[in-house]
Amino acid sequence: MSGVQRFIDTNLGRFRAELHDFLRIPSVSADPQYDQDTRAAAEWLSSQLTVAGLKSTVFETPGHPIVLAEKQTGDPNAPTVLIYGHYDVQPPDPLELWHSPPFEPSERDGRIYGRGSADDKGQLYMHVKALEAYHATGTELPVNVVLIAEGEEEVGSPNLVPFVLEHADKLACDVVLISDTGMYAEGIPSIGFSLRGLAYFEIHVHGANSDLHSGEFGGAVANPANMLARIIASLHRDDGSVAIEGFYDNVLAWDTETLEEIASLPHSDDEFSKALDLDQLTGEDGYETLERLWIRPTCDVCGFLSGYTGEGAKTVLPNHAMAKVSFRLVPDQNPDRIYQLLKAHISSLDLPGVRVDVLDLHGGRPWRTSVEGPAFEAASEALEEAFGTKPVPMGGGGSIPIVIEFEEKLDANALLVGFSLPGCNLHAPNEWFPIDNYEKGIGALARLYHKLVKVENSS
Amino acid sequence: MSGVQRFIDTNLGRFRAELHDFLRIPSVSADPQYDQDTRAAAEWLSSQLTVAGLKSTVFETPGHPIVLAEKQTGDPNAPTVLIYGHYDVQPPDPLELWHSPPFEPSERDGRIYGRGSADDKGQLYMHVKALEAYHATGTELPVNVVLIAEGEEEVGSPNLVPFVLEHADKLACDVVLISDTGMYAEGIPSIGFSLRGLAYFEIHVHGANSDLHSGEFGGAVANPANMLARIIASLHRDDGSVAIEGFYDNVLAWDTETLEEIASLPHSDDEFSKALDLDQLTGEDGYETLERLWIRPTCDVCGFLSGYTGEGAKTVLPNHAMAKVSFRLVPDQNPDRIYQLLKAHISSLDLPGVRVDVLDLHGGRPWRTSVEGPAFEAASEALEEAFGTKPVPMGGGGSIPIVIEFEEKLDANALLVGFSLPGCNLHAPNEWFPIDNYEKGIGALARLYHKLVKVENSS
Repeated sequence: MSGVQRFIDTNLGRFRAELHDFLRIPSVSADPQYDQDTRAAAEWLSSQLTVAGLKSTVFETPGHPIVLAEKQTGDPNAPTVLIYGHYDVQPPDPLELWHSPPFEPSERDGRIYGRGSADDKGQLYMHVKALEAYHATGTELPVNVVLIAEGEEEVGSPNLVPFVLEHADKLACDVVLISDTGMYAEGIPSIGFSLRGLAYFEIHVHGANSDLHSGEFGGAVANPANMLARIIASLHRDDGSVAIEGFYDNVLAWDTETLEEIASLPHSDDEFSKALDLDQLTGEDGYETLERLWIRPTCDVCGFLSGYTGEGAKTVLPNHAMAKVSFRLVPDQNPDRIYQLLKAHISSLDLPGVRVDVLDLHGGRPWRTSVEGPAFEAASEALEEAFGTKPVPMGGGGSIPIVIEFEEKLDANALLVGFSLPGCNLHAPNEWFPIDNYEKGIGALARLYHKLVKVENSS
Repeated sequence: MSGVQRFIDTNLGRFRAELHDFLRIPSVSADPQYDQDTRAAAEWLSSQLTVAGLKSTVFETPGHPIVLAEKQTGDPNAPTVLIYGHYDVQPPDPLELWHSPPFEPSERDGRIYGRGSADDKGQLYMHVKALEAYHATGTELPVNVVLIAEGEEEVGSPNLVPFVLEHADKLACDVVLISDTGMYAEGIPSIGFSLRGLAYFEIHVHGANSDLHSGEFGGAVANPANMLARIIASLHRDDGSVAIEGFYDNVLAWDTETLEEIASLPHSDDEFSKALDLDQLTGEDGYETLERLWIRPTCDVCGFLSGYTGEGAKTVLPNHAMAKVSFRLVPDQNPDRIYQLLKAHISSLDLPGVRVDVLDLHGGRPWRTSVEGPAFEAASEALEEAFGTKPVPMGGGGSIPIVIEFEEKLDANALLVGFSLPGCNLHAPNEWFPIDNYEKGIGALARLYHKLVKVENSS
C-alpha cells in the first residue's frame, strides 16, 4: 500500500486538474440540448479508466450510455467489488446565482466549485484515480473490480436496471461500493445506513382553451393557478405531516438502535439554520431534525409555473398551471403506490371548472441496511486510517434508487462511502467539493479495496 | 353628416391598412425592451392626428409619452368632448400560442388579428378616422374635441393623473368619451355603466439563502413554493368568496334597476362555457355569471413561478417563490385598502420558516354611472343609426382606472362606447377586432360627435 499511497500523494495536483477536465463537460442528463456533452463525458471517463488499467467499454442504451470497466486480480478466491457512480449532473440553473460558471471549475477556499464536483463526478473520479495508483505502481489489485458508471442517475436511471439484468454475469459481485453520499461533517468520515426513496410528479391543471383577460372573465371562470395552489396546499396538514390518505401506511418503525445512533450524533439546529440564513427549522411535528431529514417522508414542490411571470402587471387569467412535486420516501413506501394515492387525493378535492393531469416523472424505492459486517468494518478501518477519525453511521436524506435494485438483482450488499459535506450545494447553484476530502478520499478508497478482501467471495 | 359618412365608406380599405401600420409597432408598455417602439407609436399617432386636422403634441412624462390633440369648432356655445384612449398594448407572450405573429396584423374571417387590435389601438384609431372624415370633407366639427392618448394604460397609468392635473385647462370638457370597452354581443351595440377596479400585487416568499437539494434538506426546511401555495389557497373560501377579512366591507349593494337590466340581457351559461371549452363555470355562490363578471369582486393569480420548471425531474427545494395576484374591485372598494387587508391576511397565516414580501404593483378604483342623461341618449341614437339596433347598457369586468379620475379631476361625466366583442382575446394570444365593428363604428363615432352637441356646455 505504501507505494500506492505515495503515488497518490505525488500526483494530487494532476488528479485535481483532470477532475476539472471532467467537470468542464456539461453532462446534464435531464436536458436534451446537452445530449452530445453527456456522451462526451462517458467517452472521456472510459478513456481515463483505460489509463487506470481497466478494460473499459461504452455501452449504448435507449438513453445515455453506460460505461462498464473491469480488472481481475490474480487471486481466484478474491471477492469482487462493483463500484457504481454516475457521470451525469443536475441542470445548472438558475445560472445567475453561480459565482463562477457551473462548467468552468474554479478552486477557492479549499473547495472545487462546479456542477458535478460533489454529485457525483468528483467522487466517481476518486475511484478512477485510486485504481490508477495500483496500476501505475505495478501493485496487484487485492480484489476484482467492476466499475459501472451511468449517465441517467439524475433522471431516475430508466435504463440501468435493464442493463444490470442483461449483463448480470459481468456485474456479479460480493459488494456494491458507492461513493455518492456525504460525510456527516467536516473531519467526520461516514458510512451510509439509509437512503430515502423518491416519487416525482408533474401536476398540470388546465382551464379554458386560451389565456383570458382577468377582468373580462375573472369571477366566472376557474383559475388553474388558484386551483393548483389549492392542490399543493392540501398536501400538508397543519402539523407538517403529509395529508394524503394512506401515505404513512407502509412507513416502518425504526429500531431503537438506529434511533439512538441518530440521537448521539453531534447536531445543532441553531448552526444548521444559521448556515441557511433561516430563523427557524420546520417540518413534521414530533420529530427531530435528523429524523425529519433521514427517516421521515416529505412532500416538496420543486418548481411551479403559470401565466405571466415577467416584469410588470399583466392582468391575465391563465389557462394552465404546472407544478413539479416530489416526495421523499422511507421504507417500505413505494413510489408506484404513492402515485395512486396522490391521484386519488387530487380526485377527492373540490376543483370545479378545471381538468387535472398527474404525470409520474420518476421514482425510486428507499433503502436501509445494518451497520455491521465485514464490508462495514473494512470501510470503517480504511476511513479511520485515511482521515484519522473513526467514522460514524449516517442516514441519507437523498435518493440513489439503484442501490436497492443492485442489492436485489445482484444479491450483494451495498456499501455507501461518500465524501461530500453538508452545504456542498448539491442540485443547487455553486456546488462544491472539499479538496481535502478529494485528496484524502482517494487514499481511503485505495485502502478500502485492500481491506475488502475480507468480504467473503460468494462465487 | 352624409358627406362625412360617404368619405368614411369610400376610405374603409385605407383605414384598415393604416390600422395595420399602427398595430405593427410593438408598444408594450410593461417591458422596457419595447420603450423605443412605445415612443414610436406615440409619434405615429400624433402625425395621424395632424393629418386628421387636429393640432397634436407629444408630451414627455417620467414614463411613456402622452399625445394631446385638439380642434375647436366655430360655435362658442358648443360643448367640449374629451376623447381618451391608449396606444400601449399588453405583452404578447405566450408567443407560441399565436396563430399569426402578434405584431404582424392579419385579416381572417372578418377579423383583424394582432396585439392591440381591440385593446385599444383599433378603437382609438376609429376616432382618428372619424375626425379625419370631418376634416377631409370640410365639415365643421359640431363640438370642440380634445383627444388624449396615453402609453401607460396597461401598467396602471402612473403619469396620467399628474398630467391631467398639470394640463387641466387644456383638458376642460363636458363629457369624457372612451372607446376601450366592448359590445355585449355581435350586433348588439352597448354603452358601459360600470367598470371594476384593480389591485395588483406580487407576493414573494423567501426561504434559505440558496436553492437546496430536496433530499438533503427536504423535511426540515420550509419550502417557499409550498408556503406560497398555502397563501394563495387561503385567499378563497369554499363558497368561492374571497376569504380576506374585511374584503367585502365597502362593497355597495347595487340598485334593483341595474340588477334587473343585467338579468334582462340575453345570456347563456352553456354558450359562454362552450366558447371557452369549459365543462362548467364557477365563482362566488349566490350570483349569476354576469353579476360575477361585472358587479362582484374577484381574486385571480395572474402568474406564479418557483424553482425548476424546465424538462425533467430536478429535485430542488427552491428558496424563492413568486406570484402575481390581482383583485378586481367594485364600488366602493379601494385598492390601497385591499393592499393593507391582504398584508394583514398574510400576516395572520401560519407560515413558519419563510419571509413574505407583498409588493403593490398597481391599482385603480372601480366606477359606475347611471344609464340616462343627454350623453347616454346621444350615444344610444348614434349607435342605433350606425348598427340598426338599439344599444343595451352593459357592465364591465375590466378596469380603466382613469375613468373615475377623469370624472373627479375634470368634473365631467364619462361616456363608454366600445366596439370589441366577447372572445376578442384581450390580454391573451390571438387578440382580434371585428372588421365590421371597425367600419360601422367609425361612422357611429362621427354621428356621436354630432349628437353630443346636446350635452350642456358648462363653461
